[in-house]
Amino acid sequence: MAIKTGKEYLESLRRLKPTVYVEGQRYDDKTAKSVIDDPRIKPSLDTIAMVYDMANNPEYAAIMTTTSHLTGEKISRFTHVAQSTEDLELKVRMLRLLQQKSGGVCIMRCSTLDGLASPYSITYEMDQKLGTEYHKRFKEFVKRVQQNDLYVNLAVTDPKGDRRLRPREQKDPDMYLRVVKKESDGIVVRGAKFHQTAAIGAHVRLVTPTRALAADEKDYAVMFSVPADAKGTTLVASQTAPVADRLEGEEGIAKDLARYASHTTWTFFDDVFVPWEDVYMYGEYEYTHPLIIRFGGQHRATYGGCFAGRGDTWMGLAAALAETHGLSRDSIINDKIVEIAYLNEVMFGLGIACAHCGFKTPSGVYIPDEKLANALKINISRAPYEQVRLLEYICGGIFLTIPSEKDVRHPELRERIDKYIKEVDGIPAEDRIRLVSLLNVILGGSIRGSLAGPYGSCMGAAGGEGAAKVHLRTCIDIEGNKRLAKLAAGIVQD
Amino acid sequence: MAIKTGKEYLESLRRLKPTVYVEGQRYDDKTAKSVIDDPRIKPSLDTIAMVYDMANNPEYAAIMTTTSHLTGEKISRFTHVAQSTEDLELKVRMLRLLQQKSGGVCIMRCSTLDGLASPYSITYEMDQKLGTEYHKRFKEFVKRVQQNDLYVNLAVTDPKGDRRLRPREQKDPDMYLRVVKKESDGIVVRGAKFHQTAAIGAHVRLVTPTRALAADEKDYAVMFSVPADAKGTTLVASQTAPVADRLEGEEGIAKDLARYASHTTWTFFDDVFVPWEDVYMYGEYEYTHPLIIRFGGQHRATYGGCFAGRGDTWMGLAAALAETHGLSRDSIINDKIVEIAYLNEVMFGLGIACAHCGFKTPSGVYIPDEKLANALKINISRAPYEQVRLLEYICGGIFLTIPSEKDVRHPELRERIDKYIKEVDGIPAEDRIRLVSLLNVILGGSIRGSLAGPYGSCMGAAGGEGAAKVHLRTCIDIEGNKRLAKLAAGIVQD
Amino acid sequence: MAIKTGKEYLESLRRLKPTVYVEGQRYDDKTAKSVIDDPRIKPSLDTIAMVYDMANNPEYAAIMTTTSHLTGEKISRFTHVAQSTEDLELKVRMLRLLQQKSGGVCIMRCSTLDGLASPYSITYEMDQKLGTEYHKRFKEFVKRVQQNDLYVNLAVTDPKGDRRLRPREQKDPDMYLRVVKKESDGIVVRGAKFHQTAAIGAHVRLVTPTRALAADEKDYAVMFSVPADAKGTTLVASQTAPVADRLEGEEGIAKDLARYASHTTWTFFDDVFVPWEDVYMYGEYEYTHPLIIRFGGQHRATYGGCFAGRGDTWMGLAAALAETHGLSRDSIINDKIVEIAYLNEVMFGLGIACAHCGFKTPSGVYIPDEKLANALKINISRAPYEQVRLLEYICGGIFLTIPSEKDVRHPELRERIDKYIKEVDGIPAEDRIRLVSLLNVILGGSIRGSLAGPYGSCMGAAGGEGAAKVHLRTCIDIEGNKRLAKLAAGIVQD
Amino acid sequence: MAIKTGKEYLESLRRLKPTVYVEGQRYDDKTAKSVIDDPRIKPSLDTIAMVYDMANNPEYAAIMTTTSHLTGEKISRFTHVAQSTEDLELKVRMLRLLQQKSGGVCIMRCSTLDGLASPYSITYEMDQKLGTEYHKRFKEFVKRVQQNDLYVNLAVTDPKGDRRLRPREQKDPDMYLRVVKKESDGIVVRGAKFHQTAAIGAHVRLVTPTRALAADEKDYAVMFSVPADAKGTTLVASQTAPVADRLEGEEGIAKDLARYASHTTWTFFDDVFVPWEDVYMYGEYEYTHPLIIRFGGQHRATYGGCFAGRGDTWMGLAAALAETHGLSRDSIINDKIVEIAYLNEVMFGLGIACAHCGFKTPSGVYIPDEKLANALKINISRAPYEQVRLLEYICGGIFLTIPSEKDVRHPELRERIDKYIKEVDGIPAEDRIRLVSLLNVILGGSIRGSLAGPYGSCMGAAGGEGAAKVHLRTCIDIEGNKRLAKLAAGIVQD
Repeated sequence: MAIKTGKEYLESLRRLKPTVYVEGQRYDDKTAKSVIDDPRIKPSLDTIAMVYDMANNPEYAAIMTTTSHLTGEKISRFTHVAQSTEDLELKVRMLRLLQQKSGGVCIMRCSTLDGLASPYSITYEMDQKLGTEYHKRFKEFVKRVQQNDLYVNLAVTDPKGDRRLRPREQKDPDMYLRVVKKESDGIVVRGAKFHQTAAIGAHVRLVTPTRALAADEKDYAVMFSVPADAKGTTLVASQTAPVADRLEGEEGIAKDLARYASHTTWTFFDDVFVPWEDVYMYGEYEYTHPLIIRFGGQHRATYGGCFAGRGDTWMGLAAALAETHGLSRDSIINDKIVEIAYLNEVMFGLGIACAHCGFKTPSGVYIPDEKLANALKINISRAPYEQVRLLEYICGGIFLTIPSEKDVRHPELRERIDKYIKEVDGIPAEDRIRLVSLLNVILGGSIRGSLAGPYGSCMGAAGGEGAAKVHLRTCIDIEGNKRLAKLAAGIVQD
Repeated sequence: MAIKTGKEYLESLRRLKPTVYVEGQRYDDKTAKSVIDDPRIKPSLDTIAMVYDMANNPEYAAIMTTTSHLTGEKISRFTHVAQSTEDLELKVRMLRLLQQKSGGVCIMRCSTLDGLASPYSITYEMDQKLGTEYHKRFKEFVKRVQQNDLYVNLAVTDPKGDRRLRPREQKDPDMYLRVVKKESDGIVVRGAKFHQTAAIGAHVRLVTPTRALAADEKDYAVMFSVPADAKGTTLVASQTAPVADRLEGEEGIAKDLARYASHTTWTFFDDVFVPWEDVYMYGEYEYTHPLIIRFGGQHRATYGGCFAGRGDTWMGLAAALAETHGLSRDSIINDKIVEIAYLNEVMFGLGIACAHCGFKTPSGVYIPDEKLANALKINISRAPYEQVRLLEYICGGIFLTIPSEKDVRHPELRERIDKYIKEVDGIPAEDRIRLVSLLNVILGGSIRGSLAGPYGSCMGAAGGEGAAKVHLRTCIDIEGNKRLAKLAAGIVQD
Repeated sequence: MAIKTGKEYLESLRRLKPTVYVEGQRYDDKTAKSVIDDPRIKPSLDTIAMVYDMANNPEYAAIMTTTSHLTGEKISRFTHVAQSTEDLELKVRMLRLLQQKSGGVCIMRCSTLDGLASPYSITYEMDQKLGTEYHKRFKEFVKRVQQNDLYVNLAVTDPKGDRRLRPREQKDPDMYLRVVKKESDGIVVRGAKFHQTAAIGAHVRLVTPTRALAADEKDYAVMFSVPADAKGTTLVASQTAPVADRLEGEEGIAKDLARYASHTTWTFFDDVFVPWEDVYMYGEYEYTHPLIIRFGGQHRATYGGCFAGRGDTWMGLAAALAETHGLSRDSIINDKIVEIAYLNEVMFGLGIACAHCGFKTPSGVYIPDEKLANALKINISRAPYEQVRLLEYICGGIFLTIPSEKDVRHPELRERIDKYIKEVDGIPAEDRIRLVSLLNVILGGSIRGSLAGPYGSCMGAAGGEGAAKVHLRTCIDIEGNKRLAKLAAGIVQD
Repeated sequence: MAIKTGKEYLESLRRLKPTVYVEGQRYDDKTAKSVIDDPRIKPSLDTIAMVYDMANNPEYAAIMTTTSHLTGEKISRFTHVAQSTEDLELKVRMLRLLQQKSGGVCIMRCSTLDGLASPYSITYEMDQKLGTEYHKRFKEFVKRVQQNDLYVNLAVTDPKGDRRLRPREQKDPDMYLRVVKKESDGIVVRGAKFHQTAAIGAHVRLVTPTRALAADEKDYAVMFSVPADAKGTTLVASQTAPVADRLEGEEGIAKDLARYASHTTWTFFDDVFVPWEDVYMYGEYEYTHPLIIRFGGQHRATYGGCFAGRGDTWMGLAAALAETHGLSRDSIINDKIVEIAYLNEVMFGLGIACAHCGFKTPSGVYIPDEKLANALKINISRAPYEQVRLLEYICGGIFLTIPSEKDVRHPELRERIDKYIKEVDGIPAEDRIRLVSLLNVILGGSIRGSLAGPYGSCMGAAGGEGAAKVHLRTCIDIEGNKRLAKLAAGIVQD
């Protein structure tokens, strides 16, 4: 029973009752309806469920599962802590695969995957050096995660307040999550964590510091886990599926394109009690630096897989859009398609390199190479913008003006829209509508042209870059300039 | 009465009854409600109304108005055809100003501004050479536009079908708009035009070919005007205001940020009759090439003003976001802010250069320099992506996860969200929420984090580029490499 | 006699006897040979002579000459101080023209052109405000320059020492040029100026501060002119013609390609006496800031012309190299050629914009727009690198390995080299050799492959970018990725 | 005796007497002087000798040497054909190490390293499939190379003629090297090969086709080895050390900076006889495609090590130049330094990834991943240009104007130059001279400012990008634009 199916995952969530707000609607242990059925949240949980299902698919067993070094049982790779550089590499490859399956949607469960390794290794070193019991506790935690195939949601980023000030210098001491009371049986923590990926889909939360801390910041040097619906925790959802919420019950493109989605949250910790057995660090500030560094390396390396997998769909979309135009054999268009692929392979290659240059920590866990992981993250902070630009280039301006699905499906409009949107013989109008809609989802989360407009018009307005370049070619004096070069080279004389 | 106020503009629209679909809802001459009151359309018409009001503001008279060379009356610059390079330059400056006023939202009326010049000049040349009456008619049209301060919506882009084929080679001959019948009193046209900006706000439509045509494509070589609600024309709206439609009657950030918006449409022409007096070209295919080329130069040059004005708000947003973090004096952050400004000035400078190098056509109308206009358009197809990337860099990951307005305003959440989202002392939480919301509107048309997520996570995930770069610095061996350089330079020895 | 011919210019130089070192060889008033005949210097003076000749060419009179606002006489535009934005624009156009004539070699005389305007305008304001006689003196200086068509060499950049320290904080007070003694009939100055362009070709030197100065830095706030061979000044040449020095007396490619060249110098001022009538500022530190700012705007705007003109030859070279390969109609190659042209037009357009947005100073002199001038300079700090990269892309690896001219001309090798270097029928082998040699001169000042090698191999090694991209295309799964996109778009099902 | 020392390598070369032209000077078996003593060639052979010596240095044994899978003997890694992905990775690491040792100069011997693997694997498959003896012969060749630690120089690139035509379509059939006669004891080949790295330092040449060939191009499908001084082969040198040739016998910076250098050649094959035992392919055109593809992957992957190692020196140079300015702690400067490092790590990471994703061929030899290798090559065709740009940014304009060494050393100038070139207290003037000279060698192969001038002035002229950006900051209205953003965000009202 170590590896859950998607269905089992969703059922297991139903038993939890976290306090969650979704666009102003509150869910808690008193509401009849579960947040997991909220149409703004459901697509993201379906995505995670797909990830669970993939681990049950024999075709992908080698990449999606492995053997626990703690229990010897077969487990999902998402609950594994890497025992080799090969494990690190398989993680990157698994993420590329999964992003291909999700059509480029964040598959979210890497929050578990990347959350465990750094605490596992650091608590080991703390126990060795300090005689604490943190690693013993954390190992039990990992075992539980593996045996129940849990989705652990990691909460790292504090609000931070004034960026020039350290935690203890902030006017409001809660700008970084901290221990406000120490009791015999545990601690009480207060603060908030921003930017969790898919925390509504979690069974349990793992909370760590967000930065290196100093000797007088011991109350901030705290790491622990809490149940998903721990008393005092409140979640607010964001990045909720933008389409499904308005089309509940309907079928069509919006529904199809929202099949997979993601969500994010903020979590508030209002004096939450954590029993000692769930505390993995408290006060050992000197370990916060390596904890963060290793986590950074771990998580940044992952993106080499994610963004390449996402980019695979993007490259395919570029090629499919070119095909609708009849331009599959156009040199310039193909150059752009290969450019998108090139950017993918750089990200992927760096992910592989991070894995392969990974190092073994004293605990036995492997962590990706820190230097390469940061180089990868810098690369990923740049490449997708160019990929998106190239997608818009190839698509042409229609992504800015495509009508809403209600119009596309309207009995009085359908025929006309189909007639005019169709390009190449043999490719149905519907296909083009869907491909452009997919681009719009990539650009701004909705299939309507409306949303990409404010920003994307720089490409489409007054003709795209390609049109301008063709036009520019007619304005420049290539022959005259050739003559200048030949004069300079002494080939012709004045 | 030559220059309308915004209110007069809106009232004048109310008298027109075009057939329009807005997300599946049909408006026509039988519907009681006017499309101009549709909350998904209204913000865009309010934006145009603001542009009308600006022409009535004495402070901006010199830039917003001019004297008609046809009537000698004071007119809006939007209905003027440039009589000097100074006119061309003032157009660019006016657009920068207006985009500043609209907070970077497309102000749409350049469809009139840029639509008139090329036909005006080409019809003049046709009359001179061919003895036609096109220019005479067109001059009357322009007079009417000036005297009534009309919003002329330009329709250029045909669906185009298979991009490898010319109009007459398409399987469906309607892929480019064409004359299907010639009658004694006029012509009947059929086809569709994509990508009109704010066509619902138009008093009249001006329709031109989208490409250079050949001798056997005379039926496609057609230019004419039709009333906004001409029989047989049908509009489908897109890029409709994404926020207001769901918040009708409410107040708040969404409402504020949707104060200005734009919309686009597609227009179908189902055998529309056009009387001869509104026909400005029919069959003279050899004039389609210069018509398009001049229009391209005219319209592309405009963007130097628009995108610089838009970018002014963006640069200000970057600076305001930096301020909320307390990082107004951070060198790296400032370098990024100046980079955004640099990209603005390049666009603006090229717009000015297009104007100043403009040329006088035989009709007396000035057209911007074609070579520079295309260089500008290529530049604009690239720069804003980098500007947006820098905005995300400076904002930090919060644009991806900021809760919806319903949560931000929720009585049970408000205090907590405010507490944690606040950064620097002295800047209210609300300000940061609004600035991040503005970024989200720029990115994807909605204030919610949801929409920017699929694509923007490349910056925010696992820490931004800045964090990775700081981290990378700790991983590289600067001193060791310095020694390599000193060895190579013979400064130190092995 | 206001406008000298090239020959007159060279003769006038012969009468001057500055102390100059050229690669260790000393010239002074005791040496029989004039430095202007040194083969390492001569090509640069020939280039300036060409510029003088252009002003005597009736074809270019409108652009190369103008009327002095001081004397009413016809003068070279190089000695003019702009009296209108049109003057500013003509300057930019003149520089593009001249760089086309020189095959992209710096034409150097803009040192005069850009050096006069800022002092002219600032001294005017000083006299107005302070009652000084600086402007009166400077006007006399400009008159003399115009009447004798002098080449004024501007010396601005101080050595600067420790960049963190202000002039008066430097350990050695001479790190910025300063007045060391004030006498009844003049001042004595000490220091050095780096980075003069073609100072050996000057009739007179104009020396200005390099930065804004403060109240306690009055001795550094000094501006003056000195004769080219003033006692106590010593020049050291650099950027000397790299080819001609080794080929004196020979004919061939190297000789042809060194027809035009440039040189730079450093100038030392060892307690040089300057009479009061040649002093244009001394102590008025508060005017150093505007002096520098205006000079910066003035000079940076110029580059829009220079670098576009240089780039014209580069674009032509790219096209000519493509032609030798037989690839004049290749889409990808043409895209690169147009990209080079695009980058040229951006630089030129910004130059035009700087001119057109220029402002009138109280003295009547026009100065280009400062904001745009700095945007232009940032652009120019980036674009040529990409242009060179594209040139290497199109050339192919041969620029790295082309044999020396002695081999190419060698009787035992000539036939074989010609046989194998020839590509397309109809283009002689010699042409290709010359074009590749021209690229090498652009890259590193010498026609030999040797010099571009250390750095340029990134393009050529193991096949160029184009080859790798073609190869990459065969490695990527376009069809598979299309399927991913179609799955995500709901077009096909798993 | 498997592994030669540098000295043994040089001695072994002395016994060979190839016909070589160096800048017009001919060396052959009749000339008394050996080409290896030519001062224009010697530094490159010294560089290769250093590589040989490194293999004898016990400190580097693990990376520089390995065990032959053919003989079981310890051999230089340069003569090894990879038996594992670890071997591929060690190659990349070795090249980074060696480029660090050479100060960024091409170490050239990868011609051997990368030349053997593809033929080794392809001939194996030919023998298996076709029953030929090619692999048997090639294995003997490799054994000989390993046992004698030979430098095998690879010759691949044909002249190619008209790029639109295939080999057999060329007007001159010799545009691709081909068999012109088949004899009982061997073949006679004719043609030329361009772009060999350091062929004068070779013991033996390995010649392969440069492209995939078709059935009617069998005479071009030829692969063989010949002794370095085979009758009928003629070499012409290029990229010869640019400095040493003019400074023979002198000491100083030029000498130091030319300690390591490289050279390239072209080789002509004038009806050269090759005995059958040295022929490894003749006519089997269908194997030319995989031969080239594997060689491409093999060689392109290598650059991940080379260019990162080169970049290490470059990054160190940037840091050392910043140090001379006193700007080691400047944020913007450090951002540029880290950017150089980032670009290095991307190249290196991709090299590692190519290795780790390498595949085993039937022969047992491992070849790097083709897809990643091409992505790496595309990356390397771009990154170093930006690295060089950043180096120029940090250096400041002095690289353009630094005097020649003869001036720097001149007794009358030395003191003055030292006085003014010195910046920070504690860093000798000489150090700065050497660092700037090193940059000039990187840029254009010579220490003089002259050579970088024509192109590099885009950075230095009128102040660098940094100065322009600082200046631009003072011209832009940050506060005004902030207000625009706050207006748009509804924070302030008009």
